[in-house]
Amino acid sequence: MTTQVNKTAHAFDKVRLDALLNRRFFYAPAFEIYGGVAGLYDYGPPGSSLQANIIDQWRKHFIVEEGMLELDTTIMTPAPVFETSGHVARFADWMVKDTKTGDVLRADHLVKNVLEARLAGDLEARGVAAAPQDEKDKKKKKKGAKAAAVVLEDAVVKEYETILAQLDNYSGPQLGELCRTHNIRNPDTDNEVGEPQQFNLMFTSSIGPTGQHPGYLRPETAQGHFLNFSRLLEYNNGRVPFASAQIGRSFRNEISPRAGLLRVREFTMAEIEHYVDPEDKNHEKFKEVRDVEIVLLDRHVQEAGSSATKKMKIGDAVDQGVIANQTLGYFVARIYQFLIKIGINPERLRFRQHMGNEMAHYATDCWDAEIHNSTGWTECVGCADRAAYDLSVHSAKTGHPLIVRQALKEPIVTEKEAVEWNKKVLGKTFKQDAGTIQKTVESMDEAALVKLKGQLAQGSAVITSVDGKEFQLTPDILTIERKVFKQSIREFTPNVIEPSFGLGRILYTLLEHSFWSREQDVERGVLSLPPLVAPTKVLIVPLSARAEFDPLVLEVSTKLRRAGVFSRVDDSNTSIGKRYARNDELGTPYGVTIDFASVQNRTMTLRERDTMDQRIGSVDDVIAAVTELVNGTIDWGEACQRLPAYDGVQAVD
Amino acid sequence: MTTQVNKTAHAFDKVRLDALLNRRFFYAPAFEIYGGVAGLYDYGPPGSSLQANIIDQWRKHFIVEEGMLELDTTIMTPAPVFETSGHVARFADWMVKDTKTGDVLRADHLVKNVLEARLAGDLEARGVAAAPQDEKDKKKKKKGAKAAAVVLEDAVVKEYETILAQLDNYSGPQLGELCRTHNIRNPDTDNEVGEPQQFNLMFTSSIGPTGQHPGYLRPETAQGHFLNFSRLLEYNNGRVPFASAQIGRSFRNEISPRAGLLRVREFTMAEIEHYVDPEDKNHEKFKEVRDVEIVLLDRHVQEAGSSATKKMKIGDAVDQGVIANQTLGYFVARIYQFLIKIGINPERLRFRQHMGNEMAHYATDCWDAEIHNSTGWTECVGCADRAAYDLSVHSAKTGHPLIVRQALKEPIVTEKEAVEWNKKVLGKTFKQDAGTIQKTVESMDEAALVKLKGQLAQGSAVITSVDGKEFQLTPDILTIERKVFKQSIREFTPNVIEPSFGLGRILYTLLEHSFWSREQDVERGVLSLPPLVAPTKVLIVPLSARAEFDPLVLEVSTKLRRAGVFSRVDDSNTSIGKRYARNDELGTPYGVTIDFASVQNRTMTLRERDTMDQRIGSVDDVIAAVTELVNGTIDWGEACQRLPAYDGVQAVD
Repeated sequence: MTTQVNKTAHAFDKVRLDALLNRRFFYAPAFEIYGGVAGLYDYGPPGSSLQANIIDQWRKHFIVEEGMLELDTTIMTPAPVFETSGHVARFADWMVKDTKTGDVLRADHLVKNVLEARLAGDLEARGVAAAPQDEKDKKKKKKGAKAAAVVLEDAVVKEYETILAQLDNYSGPQLGELCRTHNIRNPDTDNEVGEPQQFNLMFTSSIGPTGQHPGYLRPETAQGHFLNFSRLLEYNNGRVPFASAQIGRSFRNEISPRAGLLRVREFTMAEIEHYVDPEDKNHEKFKEVRDVEIVLLDRHVQEAGSSATKKMKIGDAVDQGVIANQTLGYFVARIYQFLIKIGINPERLRFRQHMGNEMAHYATDCWDAEIHNSTGWTECVGCADRAAYDLSVHSAKTGHPLIVRQALKEPIVTEKEAVEWNKKVLGKTFKQDAGTIQKTVESMDEAALVKLKGQLAQGSAVITSVDGKEFQLTPDILTIERKVFKQSIREFTPNVIEPSFGLGRILYTLLEHSFWSREQDVERGVLSLPPLVAPTKVLIVPLSARAEFDPLVLEVSTKLRRAGVFSRVDDSNTSIGKRYARNDELGTPYGVTIDFASVQNRTMTLRERDTMDQRIGSVDDVIAAVTELVNGTIDWGEACQRLPAYDGVQAVD
Repeated sequence: MTTQVNKTAHAFDKVRLDALLNRRFFYAPAFEIYGGVAGLYDYGPPGSSLQANIIDQWRKHFIVEEGMLELDTTIMTPAPVFETSGHVARFADWMVKDTKTGDVLRADHLVKNVLEARLAGDLEARGVAAAPQDEKDKKKKKKGAKAAAVVLEDAVVKEYETILAQLDNYSGPQLGELCRTHNIRNPDTDNEVGEPQQFNLMFTSSIGPTGQHPGYLRPETAQGHFLNFSRLLEYNNGRVPFASAQIGRSFRNEISPRAGLLRVREFTMAEIEHYVDPEDKNHEKFKEVRDVEIVLLDRHVQEAGSSATKKMKIGDAVDQGVIANQTLGYFVARIYQFLIKIGINPERLRFRQHMGNEMAHYATDCWDAEIHNSTGWTECVGCADRAAYDLSVHSAKTGHPLIVRQALKEPIVTEKEAVEWNKKVLGKTFKQDAGTIQKTVESMDEAALVKLKGQLAQGSAVITSVDGKEFQLTPDILTIERKVFKQSIREFTPNVIEPSFGLGRILYTLLEHSFWSREQDVERGVLSLPPLVAPTKVLIVPLSARAEFDPLVLEVSTKLRRAGVFSRVDDSNTSIGKRYARNDELGTPYGVTIDFASVQNRTMTLRERDTMDQRIGSVDDVIAAVTELVNGTIDWGEACQRLPAYDGVQAVD
């Protein structure tokens, strides 16, 4: 029997979590000693490790499991690529300027903040607002929300709620209209704001010493996949479906980055581009995920002004047309499984469908994995059907075919009228009109060609070009014959299903979902990260820095390394309790203590982070148990059956 | 007994290797369908895997083994950081412009190419030049080297050779002088070139919507480490030595990128910053590497115009002062071990010391790991002692102390004269001169203070400021007393030893060192990548696409995955021989064939890439053997003792 732990004794406290993450250097504002730059963060040792472990799991879950083709393409991109893809024209947010100070605000965020503040003020005035938890919290709330506690008319409340539910669906001019209609001003100055203007989110640069080649930093890794499509297809022996995958840095010059990792200017993404036959978007492994249950928020519900979700099996969602096709559904399920595996709380995860105007210009259907955290529901993964958009536009622009050529099992045999020209006579007879004549005849349908053939058989025929000129044709100029055509190759541009992961957002929400404080002491924070992604798996704690412990410390760390378990030694000059408390904050799931008894009897204690239970066993038994715990082949209950409880005094917290 | 393989039957052929790397999509010019951009490359599936495996080994060899603190910092960097670090002023190459066409050339490359061409022309004229291997090669040589076959005077040959040996040591104006003195012109146009000008290699951008915050893309990851030094030190419990490590993308806007991965504009680096006490640069693990033998090319040899290397034990090199200190020597040895481990040929690896002018502005000693390839010796790793430069300048600029505070075991007790001011009287008496007076007194040495004290005891004293003014001081203004000072904390700015790896260069030279062609057929290229870094470890080859093979294929791939061995199935529609030939080009070290016998008897054949030897055994024995082969616990000879030779016919090449 294992100890019961109450993780909800204290309400979630973002201030405490942020302090912990900063103190333990999970991440910190980049260039902090220079005053920092909004939207740029550095990951310290535990943050880097956590990110690397999430990436490692992602690679196994997606790339290895599905045999995807991994890519590593450049960030710096010449301008023509993003001109073709549509990013230069459309990858923009709407910003408004304070009419007096010139401060720049993101239009949709402004509307959201002001309306939410008014609704909060309304609740407060009606006396139904939750009391702020403490002074700090109160101050914080006040800063974001300057609206006075004023009761709103019921119709106004309803209107605001509808606007907020559909906010992502408004165009720039509509956002401007909202500001005017509802008197939405810059809350920091109470000044009016101007008309929304587009601001392109790509960072610009220039390539080479002459400054003549404009470049952009990619805002997503996707184009690097598409441009290499022909090579990837060849690598895959010419067959679809297959997927390419890439993990890498992208950049977006956000207008107003949020504090923290949720909206940053430089971030690590993991993107999959899965290429399918547009006429067959079924997925051969769909049956494996049919019964996965997901919480969905579809577009119709949102367009009706609601946020009501429903729980569905993926199989039903696809069968009922809620999700457009099996491949999209397969990835929605696989995304769900991945997020749960690394420790996201399934109760705080939903899939929201994009509304019509909200969808990227290329997409035909799109579902976001939204994870709930202290700021609300946050898009962490997008899963879009980009159709043939990207491959088509790049192909059209460059003249390089980005298509699949598929041998047909049964050739398609067709019979039709075929025109053959005597070009010499045609040219001699009609000179500069020859081209027009060819075009005119070749654009005729079957019936017209049959008629023309009949007339030519009579000696001559008159045709009329689109601009109304008439020409008389004779059989020495062209012949028309019925011929059999056999098509043995089918050519098509594949469609692309794109799951796209923002790793920083996932990492941050995972930290929120993992954080709690000890029931007996709110100051003692714990990050219950699953062993799979925890930065360090096992902490090795020698009771003191005595040299006689060194050989055993070395032995344990070497044996753990050989077993593939990442451990760290903490031989700092503080009490064991403090060292364990520090590692609870770092999310280290297990600790082993080496003391005098260890040296004499070759025994070690094993401590579990969440319960603080301690067990004891021989050095090798403890290493074997902790290896299995980390690999997930046993749980703590099973470990407790193998190792007796420890009730010594040296290693208590 | 294993088969002997002759890997040098055919001379190395870069054209064949490049064709292979392109055909198998190890890497390819980025944006190729848009015409490409010089210096930007995308890695395809095998290149990405090879790179990921090299990084994985690097992490184990350096970060895990030494307990380094990993970081992940941003690429986008606000301008003030690089102004302080000196990059804005000095991170530049010298370029010259063709005086007529305006074409831009890198000055040192121009001198090198022209002088090397003249020396080659001289050899040709003397009839001692090696004959070009084939027409293609001849053409290529001609393009780079337009110099006529003219005999040079012996003194001129000697002079050119001396210039080339010291080329990295010339300043911009000196390069200009060389062009004039030796009539060095643009070889493409034969026009003169102008005076060398500095071109800064950092890509510029701007951060935020207002365009007011200039930024640079980092040209190295190092500054991200230094700016976080205080946090890292705290994470390490305030102790030095320790190291931070980071793997990430960097950018340099090269003037003239070379074809291929050797000089690119965007690249992945792995950098270590090891922080040491400036008064103790010994390394506690130095004894472990003392006997590692390295080929060295020291600065004195180069400055004397020679390139003669010598082989030394690292221990001797440090003892004799060839390498500045143990920590630098330790990393030189560890770099050597890493490169050998991943497959670099030790015969083509040397460590070259930077000459005085060549060294970066911050460094006090620097050794490059240079790897030999078809273009000559190429810097792939730098190992520099950056001293306290970076931490000092950032600290001075920001006012944020980047120092170590160390408790002294024995406090240092000193006695000295201490000055105490009566500031009120001082100010009243001397007004704006008060500051000058304080400075003058406080800069006095002990003897001067004792003298002044004596004079004050007499009633008054006259002092002279640096600018010659005299002031009369009296005991009501200041008192001087002998006091005891106890210093229990020592503060110092640590020095930084920086091993810095260019992963793309290492990857490319590794490919060159691994490439050869079968003795019997030069068209059949092989990449003998070590299993440790090979993109795929085991190829699973079902004899045909029959459904009856599927369960066994699935079983083998699942078992290999569980054993941690990355495999791929090749069930394409070609012969087994062709599939193996393709995978020889991909560097896959082992292959297993599943045929009818496998299904009936549960046996499989195991093929070794280099020898093409085939052995046979039960499915589980083959899986066990290949797992050990990949993990390096047995070699092919041992595998052959376990598994009998196979002399069947189905799976021959």
